[in-house]
Amino acid sequence: MRATVINAPYDIQVEEVPDAAVRKPTDVVLRVLRACICGSDLWPYRGEVATAPRPGQRIGHEFLGVVEEAGSEVTGFRPGDLAVAPFMYSDGLCDFCREGVQTSCVHGGGWGGFDHDGGQGEAVRVPYADGTLVKLPKDAASDDRVLAALLTLSDVMGTGHHAAVGAEVRAGGTVAVVGDGAVGLCGVLAAKRLGAEQIVILGRHTERTDIARSFGATHVVAQRGDEAVEAVRELTKGHGAHSVIEAVGTEQSMTTAVRITRPGGSIGYVGAPHGSGDGIDLRHLFDRNIALRGGLAPVRQYLPELLADVLSGAIDPSPVFDATLGLDRVADGYRAMNDRTALKVLLAL
Amino acid sequence: MRATVINAPYDIQVEEVPDAAVRKPTDVVLRVLRACICGSDLWPYRGEVATAPRPGQRIGHEFLGVVEEAGSEVTGFRPGDLAVAPFMYSDGLCDFCREGVQTSCVHGGGWGGFDHDGGQGEAVRVPYADGTLVKLPKDAASDDRVLAALLTLSDVMGTGHHAAVGAEVRAGGTVAVVGDGAVGLCGVLAAKRLGAEQIVILGRHTERTDIARSFGATHVVAQRGDEAVEAVRELTKGHGAHSVIEAVGTEQSMTTAVRITRPGGSIGYVGAPHGSGDGIDLRHLFDRNIALRGGLAPVRQYLPELLADVLSGAIDPSPVFDATLGLDRVADGYRAMNDRTALKVLLAL
Repeated sequence: MRATVINAPYDIQVEEVPDAAVRKPTDVVLRVLRACICGSDLWPYRGEVATAPRPGQRIGHEFLGVVEEAGSEVTGFRPGDLAVAPFMYSDGLCDFCREGVQTSCVHGGGWGGFDHDGGQGEAVRVPYADGTLVKLPKDAASDDRVLAALLTLSDVMGTGHHAAVGAEVRAGGTVAVVGDGAVGLCGVLAAKRLGAEQIVILGRHTERTDIARSFGATHVVAQRGDEAVEAVRELTKGHGAHSVIEAVGTEQSMTTAVRITRPGGSIGYVGAPHGSGDGIDLRHLFDRNIALRGGLAPVRQYLPELLADVLSGAIDPSPVFDATLGLDRVADGYRAMNDRTALKVLLAL
Repeated sequence: MRATVINAPYDIQVEEVPDAAVRKPTDVVLRVLRACICGSDLWPYRGEVATAPRPGQRIGHEFLGVVEEAGSEVTGFRPGDLAVAPFMYSDGLCDFCREGVQTSCVHGGGWGGFDHDGGQGEAVRVPYADGTLVKLPKDAASDDRVLAALLTLSDVMGTGHHAAVGAEVRAGGTVAVVGDGAVGLCGVLAAKRLGAEQIVILGRHTERTDIARSFGATHVVAQRGDEAVEAVRELTKGHGAHSVIEAVGTEQSMTTAVRITRPGGSIGYVGAPHGSGDGIDLRHLFDRNIALRGGLAPVRQYLPELLADVLSGAIDPSPVFDATLGLDRVADGYRAMNDRTALKVLLAL
C-alpha cells in the first residue's frame, strides 16, 4: 500500500510500504477515507524534535475510514463499518481509560513511527479496535462536509474541547483563546458550545479570526505581548477572563495566558510545551488562585458527546480545513501549512 | 492596648500600641479572645521576606473574639457577638468576593503591618466587618476546645480544605499529602471529610503523623525524595495518587507532589511558593494531564460550611494546637515553632 513517510526534516514522500494487516485478534484494518495534517506534524517536519526523522518513518495521526478486516476478538466492528480513530490508540479497559485519561492507557500509544501505520496512508492497523475506534453512521461517508467535520474529532476538535474543559468554561463566562491555529479555533467553538458569553480570540491572521468569529468569538485581539494583555483586560472590566485557552505551547503564549486570566480563573492548556522556558510564574498563579489544567487531550473520552453534536448539526468544525489534497500531494500540504498558506490540510483518499 | 510587634527578625515583643478603634462606618472592633501563630509568620521572623520587618510592625492574622464596637453601617454584628476573622479582610460585595475568591477582593487586604492591627493583640479594627467576619454561637466562648477548633477556620483548616478542593478530592479516591505541618494535617482532615478512601501523609515527625492518623490518614511515608515517590507509587498500584495536597511550598516539595500524582490527577497547592525554582515540570504535567490548582486560600468562602461541621462535631481540627500561651509569652511561641518544638501555638487572651 502507499503511505506518507518523513525520511528527514522537510522530506515528505508517499512510498510503497507493507500492507496494513491484522496482527493481533483485537486489531482491525481501517481503509483510510480521510486524513489530515496536524500542526504537531510540523515539528518533525521542521526537525524541532529530540529525535530527527529517519528514512521510512511513518507519519499522520488523524484519520477515519472503513473497516476492511477485523480480528477474531473484535466485537464492536465488522467489515464495512465507518469509524474514526483518536490520535492515540487505547485499550479501553485499564484504570486510566476507565477514568477518562485514555492518553495514559497502559497499553496505548501513538500512530506512525516505525512500529505502527501512520494515519496519512491508504490503511492503518488499529490496535485495541474496540477501545480505540468510534463508529460513525455509514451515510456520513457520502457527505464531504460531514466527513471533514467528523475527522476533526480525531484530534483538533477534541483538543479544543479539552482546553475548554480545562479552562472550566461555564455558561455566561468570559473566555480568551491564545492562538488562532486550528486548535484555537476549535477551542472557540467548544467554548461557545459550553455556553460562554464573551469569547475573545488573540490572533493576527484575519482569515483565521474570521473563522473564529463564525465559531462564536465575540472579540478579536490582534495585538501581542503587553498590548494584548491590556486589550483583554479592557474587554473584561480590567479583571481578565474567567477561562483562558492556551493553544500554542510557547513560553510567550503561556505568559500571555497567565497574564490575561482573572483571579480565581483557569487556564486550559493544550499547546504542547516547547521552548526554552514554560512561561509559568507560580507565585503569580498562587496569589490569584489561577488553575492550570490541560495536557494531551484524551479525545477518545470526548468523542461520543462531540460526535452527537456534529451529527445533529449543533457544531460544525469543518471550516478549519481550508485545503483538500489527494494523498499524492501530501508534501504540498506540509509545505502549505509550514508556509502558513494553509490553516489545515485535509487529505481525501 | 497591647499587641505583638516584630521589630526585626527574631525580635518579637508585646508592646503598647494605639487602641483599635472604629474608623469607618463599616468597621467593627473585635476584642481578641483567641489568636495563634501561623507557619507563615515564621517567614518574617526568620527574615525570609523581601522587606525585612521594621520597628513597630504588627503581626498575626488568625484570631477570633467578641465585637466591642460596630460602625454605623455594620448590619450583621453588634457588641457582644462572637466572631471569627479569615486571614484577610474582604468587602463581600465585589466581583471576586461574589465569585468566592475573597483573597482577591478589590478592597481587601491583610492584617498587621503598619496600616492595620495584627491578630496577635488585644483587639483588632476589622474593615468591612459584614463581608469579613463570620458570626459564631456565643456559647462556644465557654469551651476551650471548641474555640480552638473554630480558630483553625481563620486559616489552617480553610487552607487545608482549599488544597483538598484544588486536588479534586473525591469520594473513594486516593490522596497524598506532602507536608506534616498544621496545614498538611488539616488537608488530611479535609480529604477525609470529602470522602477519600486512602490518605497517605508524607512526613517524618511521628508526633505529627500520629495526629494525621487520628485525622484519617491511612498510611505514613517517612522517606523523602526518590524513596518517598517510590513508596507512594507502591501504595497506589504504581500509578500515584488521584489527588495530591502540596502544603509546604518549596521546590523539593512541589517536585515530589508532581511526581506522586497519577495521570489525570490534580495537585492542590497551598504552600506559598518560596525557593529558587518552582518544582514544576510543565511537560511532565502536560503528558499526564495533571492539573495544578490552589493558591492563597479564600477561607472566607469556606467558613460557613466548615463552621457547620465543627459545630456539629463532624470535624475537630483543634489537635493542631499543641501549646497554649498567654499574649505575654508570644515570643516563646515563635521560638518554639521555629525550633519545631511546637507544631502550632495558640494564644489565649
